[in-house]
Amino acid sequence: MELIKQLNWRYATKRMNGTAVPAEKVNLIKEAIRLAPTSFGLQAFQVLEIEDKAIRDRIFNEACQQPQIKEGSTVLVFAANKKVTAEMVDTYMNNIAATRGIPVDALAGFRAAFDGAVAGTEQENLAWNARQTYIALGVGLTAAAALEVDATPMEGFNPAALDEILGLADKNLASVTILVLGYRDAEADGLAAAAKVRKSADDLFVKY
Amino acid sequence: MELIKQLNWRYATKRMNGTAVPAEKVNLIKEAIRLAPTSFGLQAFQVLEIEDKAIRDRIFNEACQQPQIKEGSTVLVFAANKKVTAEMVDTYMNNIAATRGIPVDALAGFRAAFDGAVAGTEQENLAWNARQTYIALGVGLTAAAALEVDATPMEGFNPAALDEILGLADKNLASVTILVLGYRDAEADGLAAAAKVRKSADDLFVKY
Repeated sequence: MELIKQLNWRYATKRMNGTAVPAEKVNLIKEAIRLAPTSFGLQAFQVLEIEDKAIRDRIFNEACQQPQIKEGSTVLVFAANKKVTAEMVDTYMNNIAATRGIPVDALAGFRAAFDGAVAGTEQENLAWNARQTYIALGVGLTAAAALEVDATPMEGFNPAALDEILGLADKNLASVTILVLGYRDAEADGLAAAAKVRKSADDLFVKY
Repeated sequence: MELIKQLNWRYATKRMNGTAVPAEKVNLIKEAIRLAPTSFGLQAFQVLEIEDKAIRDRIFNEACQQPQIKEGSTVLVFAANKKVTAEMVDTYMNNIAATRGIPVDALAGFRAAFDGAVAGTEQENLAWNARQTYIALGVGLTAAAALEVDATPMEGFNPAALDEILGLADKNLASVTILVLGYRDAEADGLAAAAKVRKSADDLFVKY
C-alpha cells in the first residue's frame, strides 16, 4: 500500500531547505485538514497560516528557535476554541441545515447533544477541542506525506506568547500545535537518514 | 488527489452491515497507526483489539449501545498511558539505540527532554498522551478511507467502565477513544447519503 510507504518516508523534519511548497499542494493539505473528522463534527478550532515575516520571526523566538519556522515554506498554527459557545453550536446547526436542505428545527435533538459542552468549563472545553485538533493534525500529516511534502509537528513553543502575538485571547482561541510544511535539508539534518523508531506491533497492539 | 476523494467518501458510519474487513486491510490500518508520529516519538499508548464477543457486548453497554460496536468488524480501543515513567523512557531509549545501532549513552541529551514529563503529574501526563493518541486516530482514519473501509471514531462511552472491563487500571492505561472498522449499511444508516458538513475554508483558515 502506497500510504504505508509514504508514512515510512515521512519523519519530523528538523532542517528544511527553504524551497517553497507549490500552492496546489498546500491547498490539498489544507483541504485534508478541513475534511478531518472531529467530535460531533463541530470543528472547534481554526488554523492560522503565518505568512508575515515579522510574525514568523516572533514565533521562531517563542518556539525554541526551531529552524523549521524560518526554513519551512508554510507555517500553520492550530488553535482550538477555548469555550464551546451557544453561538458556535447555532452556526454549526445553520450550516448543517443549509448544506442538507433541512429545517434547523429538525436538528433540535442533535443540538441538545452540545448542552453539556456549552455548560462546561473553559478547561474542559479546551481539553476536548484540543484533542480534536490533533485528529486534523494527523490527517494533515498523512496528506503531506502522500504529496511527498515534508512536515514537522511542534509542541515545543510558548503557547501564551503565541496567543499574545496572534491576538487569540479575544477570539476564544488558544494555540495548541504548529505544523510546518517544507522540504528536508538532508545534508544539514542528521535525522534525515536515521531509521524510524517505533514500538513493535506486538508492543503496541493487545488482543482481548 | 485521490486522498481528498477518499476523505470526502468517509463519514462517521452509524450503522454497519456485519461484513468482515479482510485481515490484510486491518493490518495495513494498524500499521498506519503504528507509524503515526507522536510527541518525541514516545508512543505513550496502546491499542486494544477487542475480539472476544462477551467483552464486546460489555463495551456495547458502556458505549451508549452504539450499534457499530456489534455490527463492526474490528473494534480498537485507544488507551493512553496515564503516567510517563522513567521505565517507559528507558525502554524507548533502548529501542532507539538498538534500531539505529548507537550506544544508549549517546542519547543522554534526548533522554533529558523527558525529565519534565517524568516529574509531571498523572493529570498532565494523561492529557499530553491522550492528545498524541488522537494523531494516531487521525492517521488510522485516513488509512481506512484510503482502503475504502468504513470507520467510526467514538468518544461516547464510559471510560471508567471500559478501564474496569479491560483491566487497564493496573496497566498504567486509560481508555481515550474507540475506532470501529467495518462496512456501512447504507439502507439502515440515514447519514450514509447525507452531504458532508464542514466549515468553509474561509471560516477555518486565517492568514496572518
